[in-house]
Amino acid sequence: MAEDLPPFSTIAIAGVGLIGGSIALGLRERWPSVRVVGVDRPAVLAHAIGGGAIDTGVERLVDVGPVDLVVLAAPVRQNARLLAELASAGGPAPPVTDVGGTKGDIVRAARTLSMGGRFIGGHPVGGAEKGGFGFARPDLFKDRAWVFTPDAGAPPALLDSLFTLARALGARPASMEAEAHDRLMAFVSHLPQLTASALMDVAGSAAAADGLRFAGKGLADTTRLASSPADVWRDICLTNAEAVGEALEQLIDRLVELRADLRRGEVIDQVFGSAARWRGELMKGRE
Amino acid sequence: MAEDLPPFSTIAIAGVGLIGGSIALGLRERWPSVRVVGVDRPAVLAHAIGGGAIDTGVERLVDVGPVDLVVLAAPVRQNARLLAELASAGGPAPPVTDVGGTKGDIVRAARTLSMGGRFIGGHPVGGAEKGGFGFARPDLFKDRAWVFTPDAGAPPALLDSLFTLARALGARPASMEAEAHDRLMAFVSHLPQLTASALMDVAGSAAAADGLRFAGKGLADTTRLASSPADVWRDICLTNAEAVGEALEQLIDRLVELRADLRRGEVIDQVFGSAARWRGELMKGRE
Repeated sequence: MAEDLPPFSTIAIAGVGLIGGSIALGLRERWPSVRVVGVDRPAVLAHAIGGGAIDTGVERLVDVGPVDLVVLAAPVRQNARLLAELASAGGPAPPVTDVGGTKGDIVRAARTLSMGGRFIGGHPVGGAEKGGFGFARPDLFKDRAWVFTPDAGAPPALLDSLFTLARALGARPASMEAEAHDRLMAFVSHLPQLTASALMDVAGSAAAADGLRFAGKGLADTTRLASSPADVWRDICLTNAEAVGEALEQLIDRLVELRADLRRGEVIDQVFGSAARWRGELMKGRE
Repeated sequence: MAEDLPPFSTIAIAGVGLIGGSIALGLRERWPSVRVVGVDRPAVLAHAIGGGAIDTGVERLVDVGPVDLVVLAAPVRQNARLLAELASAGGPAPPVTDVGGTKGDIVRAARTLSMGGRFIGGHPVGGAEKGGFGFARPDLFKDRAWVFTPDAGAPPALLDSLFTLARALGARPASMEAEAHDRLMAFVSHLPQLTASALMDVAGSAAAADGLRFAGKGLADTTRLASSPADVWRDICLTNAEAVGEALEQLIDRLVELRADLRRGEVIDQVFGSAARWRGELMKGRE
Protein backbone atom coordinates (compact mmCIF):
# COMPACT_ATOMS: atom_id res chain seq x y z
CA MET A 1 0.00 0.00 0.00
CA ALA A 2 1.51 3.31 -1.10
CA GLU A 3 -0.32 4.91 1.81
CA ASP A 4 1.92 3.02 4.21
CA LEU A 5 5.08 4.86 3.20
CA PRO A 6 5.95 7.70 5.57
CA PRO A 7 5.60 11.03 3.74
CA PHE A 8 8.05 12.63 6.22
CA SER A 9 11.44 11.16 7.29
CA THR A 10 12.08 13.54 10.19
CA ILE A 11 9.35 15.17 12.27
CA ALA A 12 9.74 17.78 14.99
CA ILE A 13 7.03 17.84 17.65
CA ALA A 14 6.86 21.02 19.70
CA GLY A 15 5.20 20.11 22.99
CA VAL A 16 5.54 16.47 24.03
CA GLY A 17 2.41 16.30 26.18
CA LEU A 18 -0.65 14.12 25.78
CA ILE A 19 -1.17 14.86 22.07
CA GLY A 20 2.44 15.43 20.97
CA GLY A 21 3.61 12.44 22.98
CA SER A 22 0.88 10.22 21.55
CA ILE A 23 1.81 11.26 18.00
CA ALA A 24 5.45 10.38 18.78
CA LEU A 25 4.51 7.00 20.27
CA GLY A 26 2.16 6.26 17.36
CA LEU A 27 4.88 7.11 14.82
CA ARG A 28 7.27 4.76 16.61
CA GLU A 29 4.82 1.90 16.29
CA ARG A 30 3.71 2.61 12.75
CA TRP A 31 6.78 4.04 11.07
CA PRO A 32 9.86 3.12 13.15
CA SER A 33 12.18 4.60 10.51
CA VAL A 34 10.87 8.14 11.04
CA ARG A 35 13.17 10.26 13.18
CA VAL A 36 11.27 12.23 15.84
CA VAL A 37 12.72 15.32 17.51
CA GLY A 38 10.91 16.62 20.60
CA VAL A 39 10.83 20.24 21.71
CA ASP A 40 9.98 20.77 25.37
CA ARG A 41 11.42 21.35 28.83
CA PRO A 42 14.41 19.10 29.69
CA ALA A 43 12.44 17.04 32.24
CA VAL A 44 9.71 16.27 29.70
CA LEU A 45 12.30 15.44 27.02
CA ALA A 46 14.07 13.04 29.39
CA HIS A 47 10.73 11.35 30.15
CA ALA A 48 9.87 11.10 26.43
CA ILE A 49 13.32 9.77 25.44
CA GLY A 50 13.15 7.28 28.31
CA GLY A 51 9.67 6.23 27.12
CA GLY A 52 11.04 5.62 23.62
CA ALA A 53 8.77 8.27 22.11
CA ILE A 54 11.42 10.58 20.61
CA ASP A 55 14.97 10.12 19.28
CA THR A 56 16.28 13.37 20.60
CA GLY A 57 15.09 16.66 21.98
CA VAL A 58 15.84 20.37 22.10
CA GLU A 59 14.49 23.13 24.27
CA ARG A 60 13.84 25.71 21.56
CA LEU A 61 12.06 25.17 18.28
CA VAL A 62 14.67 27.23 16.37
CA ASP A 63 17.34 24.70 17.39
CA VAL A 64 15.54 21.75 15.86
CA GLY A 65 17.65 21.51 12.70
CA PRO A 66 16.42 20.35 9.29
CA VAL A 67 13.16 18.39 9.44
CA ASP A 68 10.40 17.45 6.96
CA LEU A 69 7.51 18.52 9.15
CA VAL A 70 6.95 20.57 12.28
CA VAL A 71 3.97 19.63 14.45
CA LEU A 72 2.98 22.35 16.92
CA ALA A 73 1.49 20.53 19.91
CA ALA A 74 1.67 23.16 22.65
CA PRO A 75 -1.42 24.91 24.06
CA VAL A 76 -3.28 26.89 21.39
CA ARG A 77 -1.90 30.38 22.00
CA GLN A 78 1.65 29.12 22.40
CA ASN A 79 1.32 27.41 19.01
CA ALA A 80 0.60 30.82 17.46
CA ARG A 81 3.77 32.21 19.04
CA LEU A 82 5.79 29.22 17.84
CA LEU A 83 4.44 29.76 14.34
CA ALA A 84 5.69 33.35 14.43
CA GLU A 85 9.13 32.09 15.53
CA LEU A 86 9.21 29.72 12.57
CA ALA A 87 8.18 32.51 10.20
CA SER A 88 11.05 34.73 11.29
CA ALA A 89 13.67 31.95 11.46
CA GLY A 90 16.21 31.82 8.66
CA GLY A 91 17.29 28.64 6.86
CA PRO A 92 15.06 25.75 5.85
CA ALA A 93 11.33 26.33 5.82
CA PRO A 94 9.62 22.98 6.50
CA PRO A 95 5.88 22.51 6.31
CA VAL A 96 4.02 23.04 9.56
CA THR A 97 0.82 21.73 11.10
CA ASP A 98 -0.64 22.08 14.58
CA VAL A 99 -2.98 20.04 16.74
CA GLY A 100 -4.83 22.80 18.60
CA GLY A 101 -8.51 22.57 19.46
CA THR A 102 -9.36 25.88 17.72
CA LYS A 103 -8.31 26.75 14.20
CA GLY A 104 -9.49 30.25 13.26
CA ASP A 105 -6.79 32.13 15.18
CA ILE A 106 -3.82 30.13 13.98
CA VAL A 107 -5.03 30.01 10.37
CA ARG A 108 -5.38 33.80 10.44
CA ALA A 109 -1.92 34.05 12.05
CA ALA A 110 -0.40 31.91 9.27
CA ARG A 111 -2.06 34.15 6.68
CA THR A 112 -0.69 37.29 8.37
CA LEU A 113 2.77 35.70 8.53
CA SER A 114 2.53 34.74 4.85
CA MET A 115 2.95 31.08 5.81
CA GLY A 116 -0.18 29.94 3.99
CA GLY A 117 1.98 28.06 1.49
CA ARG A 118 3.47 25.78 4.13
CA PHE A 119 0.98 25.69 7.00
CA ILE A 120 -2.16 23.58 7.33
CA GLY A 121 -3.91 23.58 10.69
CA GLY A 122 -5.11 20.31 12.14
CA HIS A 123 -7.12 19.05 15.10
CA PRO A 124 -7.14 15.43 16.22
CA VAL A 125 -10.53 15.40 17.91
CA GLY A 126 -10.86 13.82 21.29
CA GLY A 127 -7.84 13.76 23.52
CA ALA A 128 -8.38 12.50 27.02
CA GLU A 129 -9.36 13.92 30.38
CA LYS A 130 -5.79 14.15 31.60
CA GLY A 131 -2.88 16.02 30.02
CA GLY A 132 0.86 15.40 29.97
CA PHE A 133 3.24 12.87 28.44
CA GLY A 134 2.47 10.46 31.28
CA PHE A 135 -0.97 9.88 29.72
CA ALA A 136 0.25 9.68 26.11
CA ARG A 137 -0.39 6.44 24.24
CA PRO A 138 0.16 5.28 20.65
CA ASP A 139 -3.51 4.48 20.06
CA LEU A 140 -4.92 7.79 21.31
CA PHE A 141 -6.17 8.70 17.81
CA LYS A 142 -7.64 5.33 16.90
CA ASP A 143 -10.98 5.74 15.12
CA ARG A 144 -11.14 9.44 15.97
CA ALA A 145 -11.66 12.28 13.55
CA TRP A 146 -8.62 14.41 12.66
CA VAL A 147 -9.82 17.60 11.03
CA PHE A 148 -7.51 19.67 8.81
CA THR A 149 -8.39 23.24 7.90
CA PRO A 150 -6.43 24.17 4.75
CA ASP A 151 -6.57 27.87 3.92
CA ALA A 152 -6.77 29.07 0.31
CA GLY A 153 -3.34 28.47 -1.22
CA ALA A 154 -2.42 25.50 0.98
CA PRO A 155 -0.50 22.93 -1.11
CA PRO A 156 -2.71 19.91 -1.92
CA ALA A 157 0.34 17.62 -1.66
CA LEU A 158 0.90 18.69 1.94
CA LEU A 159 -2.75 18.02 2.77
CA ASP A 160 -2.39 14.55 1.23
CA SER A 161 0.70 13.85 3.33
CA LEU A 162 -1.04 15.01 6.50
CA PHE A 163 -4.03 12.77 5.72
CA THR A 164 -1.57 9.88 5.34
CA LEU A 165 0.03 10.75 8.69
CA ALA A 166 -3.38 10.90 10.41
CA ARG A 167 -4.40 7.55 8.91
CA ALA A 168 -1.11 5.99 10.00
CA LEU A 169 -2.02 6.91 13.57
CA GLY A 170 -5.43 5.26 13.17
CA ALA A 171 -7.46 8.45 12.79
CA ARG A 172 -10.13 9.36 10.23
CA PRO A 173 -8.84 12.50 8.47
CA ALA A 174 -11.26 15.12 7.14
CA SER A 175 -11.04 18.74 6.05
CA MET A 176 -13.25 21.77 6.56
CA GLU A 177 -12.93 25.54 6.84
CA ALA A 178 -11.38 26.85 10.05
CA GLU A 179 -14.47 28.89 10.95
CA ALA A 180 -16.82 25.95 10.39
CA HIS A 181 -14.52 23.80 12.53
CA ASP A 182 -14.51 26.27 15.40
CA ARG A 183 -18.26 26.72 15.40
CA LEU A 184 -18.85 22.98 15.30
CA MET A 185 -16.33 22.32 18.09
CA ALA A 186 -17.89 25.06 20.23
CA PHE A 187 -21.01 22.87 20.39
CA VAL A 188 -19.65 19.30 20.36
CA SER A 189 -16.43 19.78 22.35
CA HIS A 190 -16.00 23.12 24.10
CA LEU A 191 -19.56 23.36 25.44
CA PRO A 192 -19.50 19.80 26.88
CA GLN A 193 -16.19 20.56 28.58
CA LEU A 194 -17.39 23.80 30.19
CA THR A 195 -20.67 22.16 31.16
CA ALA A 196 -19.00 19.14 32.78
CA SER A 197 -16.69 21.39 34.81
CA ALA A 198 -19.46 23.80 35.86
CA LEU A 199 -21.72 20.87 36.83
CA MET A 200 -19.01 19.21 38.94
CA ASP A 201 -18.22 22.53 40.62
CA VAL A 202 -21.88 23.18 41.48
CA ALA A 203 -22.74 19.60 42.52
CA GLY A 204 -19.56 19.19 44.56
CA SER A 205 -19.95 22.53 46.32
CA ALA A 206 -23.56 21.73 47.29
CA ALA A 207 -23.16 18.06 48.20
CA ALA A 208 -19.64 18.16 49.67
CA ALA A 209 -17.59 14.98 50.10
CA ASP A 210 -20.20 13.35 52.35
CA GLY A 211 -22.95 13.87 49.82
CA LEU A 212 -20.89 12.81 46.81
CA ARG A 213 -20.75 9.30 48.30
CA PHE A 214 -24.44 9.04 47.39
CA ALA A 215 -23.95 10.03 43.76
CA GLY A 216 -24.70 7.38 41.16
CA LYS A 217 -22.86 6.53 37.97
CA GLY A 218 -24.74 9.33 36.19
CA LEU A 219 -22.81 12.14 37.85
CA ALA A 220 -19.52 10.26 37.37
CA ASP A 221 -20.09 9.86 33.62
CA THR A 222 -21.42 13.36 33.11
CA THR A 223 -18.37 14.88 34.79
CA ARG A 224 -15.60 12.68 33.41
CA LEU A 225 -14.17 15.73 31.61
CA ALA A 226 -14.07 17.73 34.85
CA SER A 227 -10.44 16.91 35.56
CA SER A 228 -9.29 18.58 32.33
CA PRO A 229 -6.50 21.14 32.76
CA ALA A 230 -7.68 24.77 33.00
CA ASP A 231 -4.78 26.24 30.98
CA VAL A 232 -5.61 24.27 27.83
CA TRP A 233 -9.25 25.31 28.04
CA ARG A 234 -8.54 28.94 28.86
CA ASP A 235 -6.69 29.13 25.54
CA ILE A 236 -9.42 27.34 23.65
CA CYS A 237 -12.17 29.60 25.04
CA LEU A 238 -10.10 32.71 24.42
CA THR A 239 -9.50 31.78 20.78
CA ASN A 240 -13.10 30.71 20.17
CA ALA A 241 -14.92 33.11 22.47
CA GLU A 242 -17.67 34.10 20.05
CA ALA A 243 -18.83 30.61 19.11
CA VAL A 244 -18.38 29.25 22.65
CA GLY A 245 -20.37 32.21 23.97
CA GLU A 246 -23.17 31.41 21.56
CA ALA A 247 -23.16 27.73 22.54
CA LEU A 248 -23.23 28.64 26.25
CA GLU A 249 -26.10 31.02 25.60
CA GLN A 250 -28.17 28.33 23.91
CA LEU A 251 -27.57 25.93 26.81
CA ILE A 252 -28.36 28.61 29.39
CA ASP A 253 -31.60 29.39 27.54
CA ARG A 254 -32.60 25.74 27.56
CA LEU A 255 -31.84 25.37 31.29
CA VAL A 256 -33.84 28.54 32.04
CA GLU A 257 -36.80 27.08 30.10
CA LEU A 258 -36.53 23.81 32.02
CA ARG A 259 -36.41 25.62 35.34
CA ALA A 260 -39.51 27.67 34.54
CA ASP A 261 -41.47 24.53 33.65
CA LEU A 262 -40.45 22.04 36.39
CA ARG A 263 -43.99 21.83 37.78
CA ARG A 264 -45.57 21.19 34.38
CA GLY A 265 -42.97 19.13 32.56
CA GLU A 266 -43.79 20.10 28.98
CA VAL A 267 -40.28 21.42 28.36
CA ILE A 268 -38.86 18.25 29.91
CA ASP A 269 -40.83 16.17 27.39
CA GLN A 270 -39.60 18.32 24.54
CA VAL A 271 -35.93 18.50 25.60
CA PHE A 272 -35.73 14.80 26.54
CA GLY A 273 -37.39 13.77 23.27
CA SER A 274 -34.96 15.82 21.19
CA ALA A 275 -31.98 14.75 23.32
CA ALA A 276 -32.81 11.04 22.99
CA ARG A 277 -32.99 11.38 19.18
CA TRP A 278 -29.64 13.21 18.96
CA ARG A 279 -28.08 10.77 21.38
CA GLY A 280 -29.12 7.99 18.99
CA GLU A 281 -27.44 9.86 16.10
CA LEU A 282 -24.31 10.47 18.16
CA MET A 283 -23.90 6.82 19.08
CA LYS A 284 -24.41 5.46 15.55
CA GLY A 285 -21.35 3.42 14.69
CA ARG A 286 -19.79 3.85 18.14
CA GLU A 287 -19.31 1.00 20.61
CA MET B 1 -24.79 -15.18 58.96
CA ALA B 2 -28.14 -14.08 60.37
CA GLU B 3 -28.17 -11.33 57.77
CA ASP B 4 -28.50 -13.93 55.05
CA LEU B 5 -31.98 -15.02 56.14
CA PRO B 6 -34.74 -13.36 54.12
CA PRO B 7 -36.76 -11.06 56.40
CA PHE B 8 -39.75 -11.38 54.04
CA SER B 9 -41.11 -14.65 52.59
CA THR B 10 -43.44 -13.12 50.03
CA ILE B 11 -42.83 -9.77 48.34
CA ALA B 12 -45.12 -7.89 45.98
CA ILE B 13 -43.43 -5.58 43.49
CA ALA B 14 -45.70 -3.00 41.90
CA GLY B 15 -44.09 -2.01 38.59
CA VAL B 16 -41.79 -4.61 37.05
CA GLY B 17 -39.60 -2.20 35.07
CA LEU B 18 -35.88 -1.57 35.35
CA ILE B 19 -35.83 -1.18 39.14
CA GLY B 20 -38.69 -3.51 40.11
CA GLY B 21 -37.48 -6.14 37.65
CA SER B 22 -33.91 -5.89 38.93
CA ILE B 23 -35.10 -6.31 42.53
CA ALA B 24 -37.05 -9.40 41.45
CA LEU B 25 -34.07 -10.88 39.58
CA GLY B 26 -31.74 -10.09 42.48
CA LEU B 27 -34.09 -11.77 44.96
CA ARG B 28 -34.17 -14.86 42.74
CA GLU B 29 -30.39 -15.11 42.81
CA ARG B 30 -29.92 -14.32 46.48
CA TRP B 31 -33.01 -15.74 48.16
CA PRO B 32 -34.61 -18.29 45.80
CA SER B 33 -37.12 -19.26 48.49
CA VAL B 34 -38.78 -15.84 48.51
CA ARG B 35 -42.03 -15.73 46.56
CA VAL B 36 -42.27 -12.68 44.31
CA VAL B 37 -45.58 -11.37 42.99
CA GLY B 38 -45.44 -8.79 40.21
CA VAL B 39 -48.02 -6.10 39.58
CA ASP B 40 -48.03 -4.66 36.07
CA ARG B 41 -49.65 -4.83 32.65
CA PRO B 42 -50.17 -8.41 31.34
CA ALA B 43 -47.47 -8.07 28.66
CA VAL B 44 -44.87 -6.99 31.21
CA LEU B 45 -45.91 -9.76 33.61
CA ALA B 46 -45.58 -12.36 30.85
CA HIS B 47 -42.09 -11.04 30.05
CA ALA B 48 -41.10 -11.09 33.74
CA ILE B 49 -42.50 -14.57 34.34
CA GLY B 50 -40.75 -15.81 31.19
CA GLY B 51 -37.52 -14.22 32.41
CA GLY B 52 -37.83 -16.07 35.73
CA ALA B 53 -38.07 -12.81 37.69
CA ILE B 54 -41.46 -13.32 39.34
CA ASP B 55 -43.52 -16.32 40.41
CA THR B 56 -46.86 -14.88 39.48
CA GLY B 57 -48.46 -11.57 38.59
CA VAL B 58 -51.65 -9.56 38.95
CA GLU B 59 -52.80 -6.42 37.23
CA ARG B 60 -54.02 -4.53 40.29
CA LEU B 61 -52.20 -4.07 43.57
CA VAL B 62 -55.38 -4.77 45.58
CA ASP B 63 -55.49 -8.28 44.11
CA VAL B 64 -52.05 -9.22 45.31
CA GLY B 65 -53.16 -11.29 48.32
CA PRO B 66 -51.27 -11.67 51.60
CA VAL B 67 -47.61 -10.65 51.36
CA ASP B 68 -44.88 -9.65 53.86
CA LEU B 69 -43.76 -6.56 51.97
CA VAL B 70 -45.02 -4.35 49.17
CA VAL B 71 -42.39 -2.57 47.05
CA LEU B 72 -43.78 0.33 45.03
CA ALA B 73 -41.62 0.53 41.91
CA ALA B 74 -43.77 2.55 39.54
CA PRO B 75 -42.96 6.16 38.53
CA VAL B 76 -42.91 8.51 41.54
CA ARG B 77 -46.41 9.98 41.30
CA GLN B 78 -48.01 6.63 40.56
CA ASN B 79 -46.36 5.24 43.71
CA ALA B 80 -48.20 7.90 45.73
CA ARG B 81 -51.51 6.80 44.19
CA LEU B 82 -50.71 3.13 44.89
CA LEU B 83 -49.93 4.03 48.49
CA ALA B 84 -53.39 5.61 48.81
CA GLU B 85 -54.94 2.42 47.36
CA LEU B 86 -53.14 0.35 49.98
CA ALA B 87 -54.27 2.70 52.76
CA SER B 88 -57.92 2.32 51.82
CA ALA B 89 -57.76 -1.45 51.14
CA GLY B 90 -59.28 -3.72 53.76
CA GLY B 91 -57.68 -6.91 55.05
CA PRO B 92 -53.99 -7.45 55.79
CA ALA B 93 -51.79 -4.36 56.10
CA PRO B 94 -48.26 -5.37 55.07
CA PRO B 95 -45.30 -3.02 55.41
CA VAL B 96 -44.57 -0.91 52.35
CA THR B 97 -41.48 0.69 50.81
CA ASP B 98 -40.93 2.42 47.50
CA VAL B 99 -37.97 2.99 45.21
CA GLY B 100 -38.75 6.45 43.82
CA GLY B 101 -36.07 9.02 43.14
CA THR B 102 -37.73 11.67 45.34
CA LYS B 103 -38.90 11.05 48.88
CA GLY B 104 -40.53 14.18 50.35
CA ASP B 105 -43.86 13.80 48.56
CA ILE B 106 -44.43 10.13 49.31
CA VAL B 107 -43.28 10.45 52.94
CA ARG B 108 -45.76 13.31 53.40
CA ALA B 109 -48.44 11.22 51.67
CA ALA B 110 -47.80 8.30 54.05
CA ARG B 111 -48.11 10.69 56.99
CA THR B 112 -51.40 12.07 55.65
CA LEU B 113 -52.69 8.53 55.09
CA SER B 114 -51.62 7.57 58.65
CA MET B 115 -49.37 4.89 57.20
CA GLY B 116 -46.26 6.10 59.01
CA GLY B 117 -46.28 2.93 61.11
CA ARG B 118 -45.83 0.65 58.11
CA PHE B 119 -44.20 2.74 55.38
CA ILE B 120 -40.52 3.58 54.96
CA GLY B 121 -39.50 5.27 51.71
CA GLY B 122 -36.40 4.09 49.90
CA HIS B 123 -34.26 5.05 46.91
CA PRO B 124 -31.73 2.72 45.32
CA VAL B 125 -29.45 5.35 43.82
CA GLY B 126 -28.28 4.91 40.28
CA GLY B 127 -30.47 3.02 37.91
CA ALA B 128 -29.40 3.02 34.31
CA GLU B 129 -29.93 5.12 31.23
CA LYS B 130 -32.66 2.87 29.86
CA GLY B 131 -35.92 1.89 31.51
CA GLY B 132 -38.10 -1.22 31.28
CA PHE B 133 -37.87 -4.86 32.33
CA GLY B 134 -35.77 -5.59 29.23
CA PHE B 135 -32.85 -3.74 30.88
CA ALA B 136 -33.35 -5.21 34.37
CA ARG B 137 -30.49 -7.24 35.82
CA PRO B 138 -29.83 -8.90 39.20
CA ASP B 139 -26.65 -6.89 39.86
CA LEU B 140 -28.11 -3.46 39.16
CA PHE B 141 -27.70 -2.39 42.79
CA LYS B 142 -24.22 -3.78 43.35
CA ASP B 143 -22.06 -1.34 45.34
CA ARG B 144 -24.64 1.43 44.99
CA ALA B 145 -26.18 3.43 47.79
CA TRP B 146 -29.78 2.61 48.80
CA VAL B 147 -31.12 5.45 50.89
CA PHE B 148 -34.08 4.92 53.24
CA THR B 149 -35.97 7.88 54.67
CA PRO B 150 -37.81 6.71 57.82
CA ASP B 151 -40.31 9.23 59.13
CA ALA B 152 -40.79 9.74 62.88
CA GLY B 153 -42.68 6.67 64.14
CA ALA B 154 -41.33 4.26 61.52
CA PRO B 155 -40.73 0.83 63.12
CA PRO B 156 -36.99 0.23 63.64
CA ALA B 157 -37.48 -3.48 62.92
CA LEU B 158 -38.85 -2.66 59.45
CA LEU B 159 -35.86 -0.40 58.76
CA ASP B 160 -33.54 -3.27 59.80
CA SER B 161 -35.33 -5.66 57.46
CA LEU B 162 -35.13 -3.19 54.56
CA PHE B 163 -31.39 -2.72 55.20
CA THR B 164 -31.02 -6.51 55.05
CA LEU B 165 -32.95 -6.61 51.77
CA ALA B 166 -30.78 -3.85 50.28
CA ARG B 167 -27.59 -5.61 51.37
CA ALA B 168 -28.83 -8.89 49.92
CA LEU B 169 -29.06 -7.14 46.55
CA GLY B 170 -25.48 -5.89 46.89
CA ALA B 171 -26.32 -2.29 47.81
CA ARG B 172 -24.96 -0.12 50.63
CA PRO B 173 -28.02 0.91 52.70
CA ALA B 174 -28.12 4.26 54.49
CA SER B 175 -30.78 6.44 56.04
CA MET B 176 -31.44 10.18 56.06
CA GLU B 177 -34.38 12.56 56.28
CA ALA B 178 -36.58 12.79 53.19
CA GLU B 179 -35.93 16.51 52.73
CA ALA B 180 -32.16 16.09 53.01
CA HIS B 181 -32.35 13.25 50.47
CA ASP B 182 -34.30 15.32 47.98
CA ARG B 183 -32.00 18.31 48.22
CA LEU B 184 -28.91 16.14 47.87
CA MET B 185 -30.34 14.27 44.87
CA ALA B 186 -31.33 17.55 43.22
CA PHE B 187 -27.61 18.29 42.93
CA VAL B 188 -26.00 14.87 42.41
CA SER B 189 -28.69 13.16 40.33
CA HIS B 190 -31.48 15.37 39.01
CA LEU B 191 -29.25 18.27 37.92
CA PRO B 192 -26.81 15.97 36.03
CA GLN B 193 -29.76 14.37 34.24
CA LEU B 194 -31.34 17.65 33.15
CA THR B 195 -27.92 18.99 32.16
CA ALA B 196 -27.03 15.95 30.06
CA SER B 197 -30.36 16.11 28.22
CA ALA B 198 -30.21 19.87 27.66
CA LEU B 199 -26.60 19.61 26.43
CA MET B 200 -27.43 16.82 23.98
CA ASP B 201 -30.44 18.76 22.72
CA VAL B 202 -28.40 21.94 22.15
CA ALA B 203 -25.29 20.23 20.69
CA GLY B 204 -27.33 17.95 18.44
CA SER B 205 -29.56 20.74 17.17
CA ALA B 206 -26.52 22.90 16.31
CA ALA B 207 -24.22 20.21 14.88
CA ALA B 208 -26.84 17.96 13.25
CA ALA B 209 -26.02 14.40 12.30
CA ASP B 210 -23.15 15.43 9.99
CA GLY B 211 -21.47 17.41 12.72
CA LEU B 212 -21.98 14.82 15.45
CA ARG B 213 -19.65 12.51 13.50
CA PHE B 214 -16.84 14.84 14.59
CA ALA B 215 -17.69 14.69 18.26
CA GLY B 216 -15.13 13.05 20.53
CA LYS B 217 -15.63 10.72 23.48
CA GLY B 218 -16.21 13.76 25.71
CA LEU B 219 -19.66 14.52 24.32
CA ALA B 220 -20.57 10.83 24.36
CA ASP B 221 -19.68 10.47 28.06
CA THR B 222 -21.23 13.75 29.10
CA THR B 223 -24.54 12.83 27.46
CA ARG B 224 -24.81 9.16 28.39
CA LEU B 225 -27.88 10.00 30.49
CA ALA B 226 -29.57 11.73 27.55
CA SER B 227 -31.57 8.65 26.54
CA SER B 228 -33.37 8.56 29.89
CA PRO B 229 -37.17 8.37 29.65
CA ALA B 230 -38.96 11.73 29.97
CA ASP B 231 -41.92 10.41 32.00
CA VAL B 232 -39.76 9.23 34.91
CA TRP B 233 -37.97 12.57 35.03
CA ARG B 234 -41.11 14.67 34.67
CA ASP B 235 -42.37 13.04 37.88
CA ILE B 236 -39.06 13.51 39.67
CA CYS B 237 -38.84 17.20 38.75
CA LEU B 238 -42.46 17.78 39.65
CA THR B 239 -42.02 16.23 43.10
CA ASN B 240 -38.71 17.99 43.76
CA ALA B 241 -39.28 21.25 41.91
CA GLU B 242 -37.95 23.57 44.58
CA ALA B 243 -34.58 21.88 45.11
CA VAL B 244 -34.13 21.10 41.41
CA GLY B 245 -34.93 24.72 40.60
CA GLU B 246 -32.27 25.87 43.03
CA ALA B 247 -29.70 23.47 41.57
CA LEU B 248 -30.51 24.63 38.03
CA GLU B 249 -30.20 28.23 39.14
CA GLN B 250 -26.72 27.63 40.57
CA LEU B 251 -25.58 25.94 37.35
CA ILE B 252 -27.08 28.69 35.21
CA ASP B 253 -25.29 31.29 37.33
CA ARG B 254 -21.98 29.50 36.87
CA LEU B 255 -22.46 29.23 33.09
CA VAL B 256 -23.37 32.92 32.89
CA GLU B 257 -20.18 33.78 34.77
CA LEU B 258 -18.12 31.60 32.43
CA ARG B 259 -19.69 33.20 29.38
CA ALA B 260 -18.96 36.70 30.62
CA ASP B 261 -15.29 35.84 31.18
CA LEU B 262 -14.37 33.76 28.10
CA ARG B 263 -11.84 36.32 26.88
CA ARG B 264 -10.08 36.58 30.26
CA GLY B 265 -10.31 33.06 31.64
CA GLU B 266 -10.25 33.83 35.36
CA VAL B 267 -13.60 32.15 35.95
CA ILE B 268 -12.39 29.16 33.91
CA ASP B 269 -9.39 28.80 36.25
CA GLN B 270 -11.63 29.01 39.28
CA VAL B 271 -14.37 26.66 38.04
CA PHE B 272 -11.92 24.10 36.60
CA GLY B 273 -9.86 24.15 39.80
CA SER B 274 -12.88 23.54 41.99
CA ALA B 275 -14.31 20.97 39.56
CA ALA B 276 -11.07 18.97 39.46
CA ARG B 277 -10.97 18.82 43.27
CA TRP B 278 -14.60 17.66 43.55
CA ARG B 279 -14.07 15.18 40.74
CA GLY B 280 -11.23 13.70 42.81
CA GLU B 281 -13.58 13.40 45.81
CA LEU B 282 -16.32 11.86 43.68
CA MET B 283 -14.03 9.19 42.28
CA LYS B 284 -12.52 8.15 45.61
CA GLY B 285 -13.15 4.45 46.02
CA ARG B 286 -14.74 4.10 42.57
CA GLU B 287 -13.11 2.13 39.77
